[in-house]
Amino acid sequence: MERIKCTITYDGSGFAGFQVQPDHRTVQGLLEKALSKIHKGETIRIQASGRTDTGVHAIGQVIHFDTALIIPEKNWKQAINTLLPDDVRVVNVEKVDNAFHARYSVKQKEYHYIVLNREDPDVFRRDYVLYFPRRLDIASIQAACKHLEGTHDFTTFSSAKSSVKGSKVRTLFHASCRKKEDDIEFVFRGSGFLYNMVRIMVSALLDVGIGKRKPEDIPALLEARERGQLGKTISPKGLYLWEVSYEEEGERNHTEN
Amino acid sequence: MERIKCTITYDGSGFAGFQVQPDHRTVQGLLEKALSKIHKGETIRIQASGRTDTGVHAIGQVIHFDTALIIPEKNWKQAINTLLPDDVRVVNVEKVDNAFHARYSVKQKEYHYIVLNREDPDVFRRDYVLYFPRRLDIASIQAACKHLEGTHDFTTFSSAKSSVKGSKVRTLFHASCRKKEDDIEFVFRGSGFLYNMVRIMVSALLDVGIGKRKPEDIPALLEARERGQLGKTISPKGLYLWEVSYEEEGERNHTEN
Repeated sequence: MERIKCTITYDGSGFAGFQVQPDHRTVQGLLEKALSKIHKGETIRIQASGRTDTGVHAIGQVIHFDTALIIPEKNWKQAINTLLPDDVRVVNVEKVDNAFHARYSVKQKEYHYIVLNREDPDVFRRDYVLYFPRRLDIASIQAACKHLEGTHDFTTFSSAKSSVKGSKVRTLFHASCRKKEDDIEFVFRGSGFLYNMVRIMVSALLDVGIGKRKPEDIPALLEARERGQLGKTISPKGLYLWEVSYEEEGERNHTEN
Repeated sequence: MERIKCTITYDGSGFAGFQVQPDHRTVQGLLEKALSKIHKGETIRIQASGRTDTGVHAIGQVIHFDTALIIPEKNWKQAINTLLPDDVRVVNVEKVDNAFHARYSVKQKEYHYIVLNREDPDVFRRDYVLYFPRRLDIASIQAACKHLEGTHDFTTFSSAKSSVKGSKVRTLFHASCRKKEDDIEFVFRGSGFLYNMVRIMVSALLDVGIGKRKPEDIPALLEARERGQLGKTISPKGLYLWEVSYEEEGERNHTEN
């Protein structure tokens, strides 16, 4: 068997999220259907770096699957893409050793969140950004980002509905915000993210941007460990799973296989 | 009665074109429905600078209508936008004198056509660009653009199905092509355009870009006055009605009113 790693991009607008669900159009569902066709009807299960919710986009989601077929990397890409609709594409295919796991070998994930900050919405990007016309103080948002960086218990910044038991401690290596014309682009890079964590962080950061909260409020919010401290989770439309980085081959735990 | 000029933008993907048609979702249909609501059910007809086909986008389409209501410009914009779906927006409202006509006072129109020229398509722009992965010689395309500029009979470059009788002579003030990262953006500015003219010109220019035709073939193609000389009309997805310019107030024919 060969293990195939694929980097994929998708427009989340037309999907009921990543994870396969009966009677719903999902990214996983379409990928497994395409792979099953290539394997003459055999069921092929894929493993992803993680799920994405309805409406969330991906620039560099990563999945893997195992196959008995011997096909060159370039041909894999074409074979799968030919069987996919045009809102999901394989951008890269790589043969990996069996110690690689799309979910368990993740080292870092990077998410971006894009806010359109101008008076008028953009008809062409209505599914791709959060339209937010109020004036934002970018310097305050940046100061608040600095307070989010580091290793913290992110309970306040994760969905109370999360089924994940266990620790809510995560490490955020990088949190930033930059203005590019009318776009405000947030970048978060971390060891892992809790359910809805990016959307709740951006919601709190926009509160800082409009002066409803101060950057110095962030440490107390983290300390509170209570989701109820913050407003509602904002739209998935501006959210992109941007990049997933993995351990180098030598770093992987070869017993996992 | 006051005459109101509106500049509007729309994502053409969800419309069966601009012009109202029974049982179809059209830009004109939605605008007239919104205006009718503002006028307590009265039928309001709009006049546009011209139609756009199914799938064609607009950054700066212009329309006008007449109203007995006295409403400030800024409030008009908000009132109409509140009643429109989010794939069409009024971006500007201006009160004009009655000599202004969205169609008959047009001085110049500018269309852009965007081609995504790279190996992989972009899932986020599949309705907004023409995906064209073949290598293009931009210098040759630019040379061909120069041959299109000027006053010519554009019969070869217009739909044979066009119902327009009369002259097919038009003046193209500007035709150009520039590369911006992976985008090839065509810009055409002219006194007026025949049916499908931009899409047929771009189709011919892409033929030049891949070496199937030479820039020097353009004069003979114009001379032939025969639509059959060229390949098929390309996708509307990359096409944008970018800007419509009008005569200044003093230049208008005041007898028209």
